[in-house]
Amino acid sequence: MTTKNLISEINRKKSFLCIGLDVDLDKIPKHLLSEEDPIFSFNKAIIDATHHLAVAYKPNTAFYEAYGLKGWRSLERTIEYLNKNYPEIFTIADAKRGDIGNTSTMYAKAFFDDLAFDSVTVAPYMGKDSIEPFLAFENKHTIMLALTSNEGAFDFQTKDVGGQEFYKMVLQTSTAWKNAKNLMYVVGATKAEYLADIRSIIPDSFLLVPGVGAQGGNLQDVAKYGMNKHVGLLVNSSRGVIYAGNDTQFYNEAAKAAKVLQQQMEVILDAR
Amino acid sequence: MTTKNLISEINRKKSFLCIGLDVDLDKIPKHLLSEEDPIFSFNKAIIDATHHLAVAYKPNTAFYEAYGLKGWRSLERTIEYLNKNYPEIFTIADAKRGDIGNTSTMYAKAFFDDLAFDSVTVAPYMGKDSIEPFLAFENKHTIMLALTSNEGAFDFQTKDVGGQEFYKMVLQTSTAWKNAKNLMYVVGATKAEYLADIRSIIPDSFLLVPGVGAQGGNLQDVAKYGMNKHVGLLVNSSRGVIYAGNDTQFYNEAAKAAKVLQQQMEVILDAR
Repeated sequence: MTTKNLISEINRKKSFLCIGLDVDLDKIPKHLLSEEDPIFSFNKAIIDATHHLAVAYKPNTAFYEAYGLKGWRSLERTIEYLNKNYPEIFTIADAKRGDIGNTSTMYAKAFFDDLAFDSVTVAPYMGKDSIEPFLAFENKHTIMLALTSNEGAFDFQTKDVGGQEFYKMVLQTSTAWKNAKNLMYVVGATKAEYLADIRSIIPDSFLLVPGVGAQGGNLQDVAKYGMNKHVGLLVNSSRGVIYAGNDTQFYNEAAKAAKVLQQQMEVILDAR
Repeated sequence: MTTKNLISEINRKKSFLCIGLDVDLDKIPKHLLSEEDPIFSFNKAIIDATHHLAVAYKPNTAFYEAYGLKGWRSLERTIEYLNKNYPEIFTIADAKRGDIGNTSTMYAKAFFDDLAFDSVTVAPYMGKDSIEPFLAFENKHTIMLALTSNEGAFDFQTKDVGGQEFYKMVLQTSTAWKNAKNLMYVVGATKAEYLADIRSIIPDSFLLVPGVGAQGGNLQDVAKYGMNKHVGLLVNSSRGVIYAGNDTQFYNEAAKAAKVLQQQMEVILDAR
């Protein structure tokens, strides 16, 4: 998907909501456990009930890998279902990959070619030649960790490097990489006040913002400091939406939770 | 596997060789492509021919994920084969994972419980709470990226943070984490001279050293600067061993290449 199409969908749906499909068999409604593929059944119901409210879905690969071959099959089915039935949806493999060049190329093939995701999240520690292989794919997007929403973000990301925080140096450095236009960035919503500084470094890039809801971020602050002229935001909610209900009508509860977020986003978008 | 057992195997085999199973269908002998599971057939032949020369095998997950469900099945078969036939071998899932706490727990379950690897590689960018979930598993080992062997290592890892290089701060910080005894570290062999400094920070930990061979590192230098009283080294070779031959007897060529490395290691170990 092109960035232009993504922006167009955001304006059409009046939503920049991304729904995180972090599916844990211990947390989904019990009646699904007798299905042949409970994870896919859960995802399908959530997607069908919320697709008009969200512009992106983000399965976190850890939750699929934890169930081995069956889990990987559920991931395949989920992305196939999205691509077939809702091709207007932006899909994110939340995989946080990154390795030396030829290996990153294999990861890029796995997520962009084999699974046909629109984007994948990557970790920056190994530098330029670990990320550029992802950036080489046209109309695919590489979402690099910058400032994450967990406590551990303060261990390394905010350390001072030559007068600026490490994550800012990471952002700055990445803008010079080949095909940097294909970069988006993960920026945690628990630090909304940092978004103004971040925007001074990468004014035009999309930001994927986790941490609204379960992790405590505030949507208004994120929009205030993080929005650019093309919106430039995808705000993720995982548990707050997908586990909103836990009975046979769980997907209706998920849709209600997604609707609350979409309506807040609509107010923000209309006020521009 | 306990660290004690790993040390005992190193001394018994007079080898600290790790063989990287980075299997690319474009590079394996053509006659294998007609097999039902070419990747597993390749791995099985390599393992059977080299297991007495190596103490560890390290499949890189990217090379399996790139082939989707079939690739994940090949990975499963490979680790099952190793655990069943060569339980004395230390197994490494080279996955470079890392995410917020509950997600890292899912990755840890994927590699330690579901696939039953002895260890997994992780990336440090997200800090303490992204790594500690891995460290909580007893007799499992978490191998954290410190200084990698690629060019991109100089983008971030060697940057100055308060008077020391970033990767040294990462090493230092990690020693205070809960169950830090379960940490090992990835240190690239292309910078063997750095190993002395690294040993001053983490004198007792095992180091996984990629980059000998195809990536240009030198085994003698690695041993000179990196070895500790318990050896404390696993030196990896991937392409140099597994693609040493390309005909029907490829595994014999792989064994010859592995034997060359093992003999160099034997000389080093005997000279202690």
